[in-house]
Amino acid sequence: MKTRFVLIHTSHAGNVGATARAMKVMGFGDLVLVAPRWANVLRREETIQRASGALDVLNQARIVATLDEALDGMTHLCATAMTPRDFGPPTRAPREHFAALLGAPDSLLKKELLAPAGHGLEADLASKPEGVAFLFGSERFGMQNEDVYRCHVALSIPTDPNFGSLNLAAAVQLIAYDWREALGGFAVQPATPEPQLADAAAVAGMLAHWEQSLADIGFLDPASPKKLMPRLNQLFNRAGLSPEEIHILRGVAKAMRQKAVQAAAKNTAPADTPARP
Amino acid sequence: MKTRFVLIHTSHAGNVGATARAMKVMGFGDLVLVAPRWANVLRREETIQRASGALDVLNQARIVATLDEALDGMTHLCATAMTPRDFGPPTRAPREHFAALLGAPDSLLKKELLAPAGHGLEADLASKPEGVAFLFGSERFGMQNEDVYRCHVALSIPTDPNFGSLNLAAAVQLIAYDWREALGGFAVQPATPEPQLADAAAVAGMLAHWEQSLADIGFLDPASPKKLMPRLNQLFNRAGLSPEEIHILRGVAKAMRQKAVQAAAKNTAPADTPARP
Repeated sequence: MKTRFVLIHTSHAGNVGATARAMKVMGFGDLVLVAPRWANVLRREETIQRASGALDVLNQARIVATLDEALDGMTHLCATAMTPRDFGPPTRAPREHFAALLGAPDSLLKKELLAPAGHGLEADLASKPEGVAFLFGSERFGMQNEDVYRCHVALSIPTDPNFGSLNLAAAVQLIAYDWREALGGFAVQPATPEPQLADAAAVAGMLAHWEQSLADIGFLDPASPKKLMPRLNQLFNRAGLSPEEIHILRGVAKAMRQKAVQAAAKNTAPADTPARP
Repeated sequence: MKTRFVLIHTSHAGNVGATARAMKVMGFGDLVLVAPRWANVLRREETIQRASGALDVLNQARIVATLDEALDGMTHLCATAMTPRDFGPPTRAPREHFAALLGAPDSLLKKELLAPAGHGLEADLASKPEGVAFLFGSERFGMQNEDVYRCHVALSIPTDPNFGSLNLAAAVQLIAYDWREALGGFAVQPATPEPQLADAAAVAGMLAHWEQSLADIGFLDPASPKKLMPRLNQLFNRAGLSPEEIHILRGVAKAMRQKAVQAAAKNTAPADTPARP
């Protein structure tokens, strides 16, 4: 399946560069500009600065004069439009539309989506599209009606009804993210190795160690223990201790006990008074 | 539940403005800057330009000297960090983490998420957090280790392993979007009224009209109709016709028939030859 991002009549060079970067972090590279304000927009300083290394996307990008020339090979056209229209393709949130388009495993979702609409989506479901194009209008005026009419769907990113002013490159970033996730997504690289959990026996052994030491230092009264140990047990259960942390906590218990023993020895033989005669 | 975005040691004014805008479109307004590069960053021209109307977020934003001062009232701290670390909180994709944190209806997902990790997440599930803070490091160096260590989770936005260079404000936009969606999301305002579907009887009536007209214009041979009408029936089923479209298609059939009748009349009485003697 091919994916293309089409910017129509874009006026800010920075947005073109930021769009290239937003596409590339999500693994997309096919960018077409329809009649941008600046003919040399792909080589402008601001474009290159905001692209921040996504230069291959800029280098491969095409500039064309009309939307027709931008759509070769594309079979499913997604408008991104905010302005209400009296007529046009169905309006959908991107995440739900992509799930329906690609055949989400959750068939309930699909039914829910398709029941009220029925227009166009069944066709997509019958056969997954070979080429999906995302069309973005100009910063100031959005998409023209005649361009929206060509599309299979109008994607609307769910924003605060009181402030829907999404930056163009931010919109590209969100659509690229949702589309990449719908296509299966990239794996998150765990920065730290997944920790192992200590088993219940190890936790119980550590708690017994602590119980003894807390008595040694005089915090726990064995004659009236109350709920102290069960409370600590619950705390450590929630934390999910690793074997290494059991080791640390046993070290703390050991040190408490040693200090208690030292203190007891001092009480019977204070350091400033030689024990020997 | 309170939500706060915390930018630590941010150096580009444009990113502060774009962050305010990214937050506001997703309905968030609590922004704290920890020791930004420019003390007057909230009033710089580039900040205000890129905020594009999200001035209330800038006006309410606080600048503080240390991370400690930024975290009052926050009970769940999310680092956003890309650099691998040998130690620290578990790394999670935002969408999955938010579902677990808020108690996703899909308990299978939750189990899957928690089984391998177990660290910290159970605690969050036991009681939903009162304040969630998202921490973002500087553009060049990301977050410092000691700041990451304080966090409950390290969120990693799934990006192309070959190009993970996400712009700071773009990262804020994606996190704000995923978090808003996890919190229930904003409704998508349908730009067009949901179309009604024509019922099967209306479709069959229109097709009968077309069958007649297609014969009239000589495209359909009634003696050998082949699969033409069933094919058109399938095509219109996939399109999901509205009553208005039935009306249009019947108009087309009617016009075809009229033209066929005119042509037949012309054939018997050519215009350039007066019919009368």
